[in-house]
Amino acid sequence: MTGLALLGAGIAAGLAAIGTGVGNGMVISKMLESMARQPELSGQLRTNMFIGVGLIEAVPIIAIVIAFMLLVK
Amino acid sequence: MTGLALLGAGIAAGLAAIGTGVGNGMVISKMLESMARQPELSGQLRTNMFIGVGLIEAVPIIAIVIAFMLLVK
Amino acid sequence: MTGLALLGAGIAAGLAAIGTGVGNGMVISKMLESMARQPELSGQLRTNMFIGVGLIEAVPIIAIVIAFMLLVK
Amino acid sequence: MTGLALLGAGIAAGLAAIGTGVGNGMVISKMLESMARQPELSGQLRTNMFIGVGLIEAVPIIAIVIAFMLLVK
Amino acid sequence: MTGLALLGAGIAAGLAAIGTGVGNGMVISKMLESMARQPELSGQLRTNMFIGVGLIEAVPIIAIVIAFMLLVK
Amino acid sequence: MTGLALLGAGIAAGLAAIGTGVGNGMVISKMLESMARQPELSGQLRTNMFIGVGLIEAVPIIAIVIAFMLLVK
Amino acid sequence: MTGLALLGAGIAAGLAAIGTGVGNGMVISKMLESMARQPELSGQLRTNMFIGVGLIEAVPIIAIVIAFMLLVK
Amino acid sequence: MTGLALLGAGIAAGLAAIGTGVGNGMVISKMLESMARQPELSGQLRTNMFIGVGLIEAVPIIAIVIAFMLLVK
Amino acid sequence: MTGLALLGAGIAAGLAAIGTGVGNGMVISKMLESMARQPELSGQLRTNMFIGVGLIEAVPIIAIVIAFMLLVK
Amino acid sequence: MTGLALLGAGIAAGLAAIGTGVGNGMVISKMLESMARQPELSGQLRTNMFIGVGLIEAVPIIAIVIAFMLLVK
Amino acid sequence: MTGLALLGAGIAAGLAAIGTGVGNGMVISKMLESMARQPELSGQLRTNMFIGVGLIEAVPIIAIVIAFMLLVK
Amino acid sequence: MTGLALLGAGIAAGLAAIGTGVGNGMVISKMLESMARQPELSGQLRTNMFIGVGLIEAVPIIAIVIAFMLLVK
Amino acid sequence: MTGLALLGAGIAAGLAAIGTGVGNGMVISKMLESMARQPELSGQLRTNMFIGVGLIEAVPIIAIVIAFMLLVK
Amino acid sequence: MTGLALLGAGIAAGLAAIGTGVGNGMVISKMLESMARQPELSGQLRTNMFIGVGLIEAVPIIAIVIAFMLLVK
Repeated sequence: MTGLALLGAGIAAGLAAIGTGVGNGMVISKMLESMARQPELSGQLRTNMFIGVGLIEAVPIIAIVIAFMLLVK
Repeated sequence: MTGLALLGAGIAAGLAAIGTGVGNGMVISKMLESMARQPELSGQLRTNMFIGVGLIEAVPIIAIVIAFMLLVK
Repeated sequence: MTGLALLGAGIAAGLAAIGTGVGNGMVISKMLESMARQPELSGQLRTNMFIGVGLIEAVPIIAIVIAFMLLVK
Repeated sequence: MTGLALLGAGIAAGLAAIGTGVGNGMVISKMLESMARQPELSGQLRTNMFIGVGLIEAVPIIAIVIAFMLLVK
Repeated sequence: MTGLALLGAGIAAGLAAIGTGVGNGMVISKMLESMARQPELSGQLRTNMFIGVGLIEAVPIIAIVIAFMLLVK
Repeated sequence: MTGLALLGAGIAAGLAAIGTGVGNGMVISKMLESMARQPELSGQLRTNMFIGVGLIEAVPIIAIVIAFMLLVK
Repeated sequence: MTGLALLGAGIAAGLAAIGTGVGNGMVISKMLESMARQPELSGQLRTNMFIGVGLIEAVPIIAIVIAFMLLVK
Repeated sequence: MTGLALLGAGIAAGLAAIGTGVGNGMVISKMLESMARQPELSGQLRTNMFIGVGLIEAVPIIAIVIAFMLLVK
Repeated sequence: MTGLALLGAGIAAGLAAIGTGVGNGMVISKMLESMARQPELSGQLRTNMFIGVGLIEAVPIIAIVIAFMLLVK
Repeated sequence: MTGLALLGAGIAAGLAAIGTGVGNGMVISKMLESMARQPELSGQLRTNMFIGVGLIEAVPIIAIVIAFMLLVK
Repeated sequence: MTGLALLGAGIAAGLAAIGTGVGNGMVISKMLESMARQPELSGQLRTNMFIGVGLIEAVPIIAIVIAFMLLVK
Repeated sequence: MTGLALLGAGIAAGLAAIGTGVGNGMVISKMLESMARQPELSGQLRTNMFIGVGLIEAVPIIAIVIAFMLLVK
Repeated sequence: MTGLALLGAGIAAGLAAIGTGVGNGMVISKMLESMARQPELSGQLRTNMFIGVGLIEAVPIIAIVIAFMLLVK
Repeated sequence: MTGLALLGAGIAAGLAAIGTGVGNGMVISKMLESMARQPELSGQLRTNMFIGVGLIEAVPIIAIVIAFMLLVK
């Protein structure tokens, strides 16, 4: 019983890492591209990127929390 | 029996993290691109992005709730 | 028996989160793009986006309901 | 025996959510794009979008019905 | 024995939902695009779209029928 | 023994639905696109589309027949 | 023993349906596109499409035959 | 023992159908496209297409033969 | 023991069919495209295509031989 | 029980490596491209890239921590 | 024990056939394309193609050798 | 128990190799492309590439460490 | 025990064949394309291609060695 | 126990071969393309390619080392 929970913790953490990697990768690479095109907007773009990254990472971080809870189960 | 439920919690949380990463990644990267093209619309775009992110994250967050319920089962 | 049902609840919730993330991501990112191209249409575009998101989320939310029913089974 | 049926209910509901998310996402994002290009057609486009969404969701909703029948089995 | 049949019903219904979602999504989004390009053809395009959707949904609906037959088996 | 046959029926029907959805979706969406580009050819295009859909659906329908034979086995 | 054969029949029929759907979908959609570009060649294109579809469907139909032989095994 | 052989026959036939569908689909759709671009070469193109289809179908047909040999094993 | 060998024969033959279908499909469709662009080179292109197809089919045919050896094992 | 936990540690670490590879790869390659287009912004771009990489690697590194905790479990 | 070895032989041979099909397909189709663009280089291109095919097929052929060794094990 | 840990070590190492291959491949190929476009920036580009590769390889190398720890477990 | 090792040998050899096929296919097809564009560089391009192929095949060949060691285990 | 370790060795080696094939393939093909565009930079490009390949192959080679350690375990 506990073995499957620990396996589930590993799967949840790994999938969360993939989700956050892909999502943040799209957002931050687009920020760098936009910044190179319009350098005078770089402050505004970075601010919005931070908001976006925070929104993207909300669910993966809860998935990480679930993985921790599966660990201490 | 409980082992499979905990494995299911891990799978639900991981897939929710992927779904929210991909969905938010598309929306926020498009917002940054549009903002660099039309900086005067940035307030409006960010407002609509927040609405969109809220709509996207509705189902993944319920999936997270389900994962928690599977945890405490 | 109950273990498989709980595993099924996790799978249903996770797949629903992916479906809603991809579907809403396409719609909302296209809305932001269209809004930046024609700012005077932003009210109309947002209204139609809400209708679209509602239509997209209908089936995933029922899938979430099914996941809850599998939980309390 | 019942466990597999409940697992099947979860799979059916989850795949239906993915199918409807992808299908509706394509249709509604294309509607928003067309609406921004020809705003004077927006009523007609929305009407046709409703018809299309209805046609797309026919089969996933029956799949949801099947999932419910598997639940109460 | 019955458990596998019920699992098969769920798989059949879910795959049918994906097939119909992808197929109809392609057809209807193309119809909206064509309609925005040539609004005077919208009646003809919608008629042909209905024929096409009917042809696409023939096999998924039979798959749904099979799923129902697997349910009552 | 019968359980695997019924599972096979579900798989056959589901894959047939995907095959017919993808194939018909390509053909009919291309027909609508061609029709919008050359409206005077719409009769001829629809006729050929019907022939094409008939040819595409030949094998999936036999797969459906096989699924039915697996059902009554 | 027979159960696996019947499962194999379902897999063979389903994969054959996917193969024929993708292959014919590519050929017939290209025919409609070419026909709209050069309407005076439509007879010749349709003839060649028939030959092509016949060649594509040769192997899937034998796969269907094998599925039938697995059924009556 | 025989059950796995029959399952293998189904897999071989199904994969052969997919291989021949994709391969022939690429060749014949390209032939139709080339034919519409240069109608005076249609005889030569069809001849070469026949050679190509023959070469593509060589291995799938042997796979079909293997599937038959697995059947009669 | 023999059952797995026969299953392996089916897998080897099926994968070989896919490999040869994709590889030959790429080569022969490119040949037809080049032939339509430069009809005066068609002899040379066909000769080189034959060499290429021979090289591509070398390994799949050995895979077929291995499948036969697994059959008679 | 411990075996599954150790397997889960390997899966979590491996998926985290893929997530971070894909995400960082997108960001850093876009930074190099932007830097070559606008060399005078290279300091600013590198600073933002560092922030982005830090945000991307947050979740994978927690996944690594979880893998370590699964190891010492 | 021997059964798994024979299954491994089938998998090795099948994957080798896919690898050689994809790799050679890319090289030879590019050769035909280059040859049609610059017919005066056709000898040189074919020579280099032979070298390339030899290099590509080195590893798949060793994989075939391994498959044979698994067969006679 | 130890067997699964060793299997996990192999999976972690293999996935880490894929992640680092894809990530570094994107970064270094983009560096070479940028270097050919702006040769005078090659020093700066290489320096930034080294930083990027270091950041990308951080997590895969920890995954390798985990694989080693699974080995000596 | 030995059976799994032999299965692992087949998998290692097959994946190595795919890796080398894809990697070499990309390099050599790009060499032929570059050679047709700048025939005077063909010697230099071929030399660099040989170096590249050697670097690509290093790891697959070690994988082949591992497969052989698994064979004689 | 040892059987799974040997299977893991095969998987690690195979995945490392794929990772190095894809990564090096991207880098070296881009080098050849850049070299054909700017032949005077070929020395510099090759030097940087060597550095890049070294960085890419670091982790796969450690994966190979792990595979060897799994072999002698």
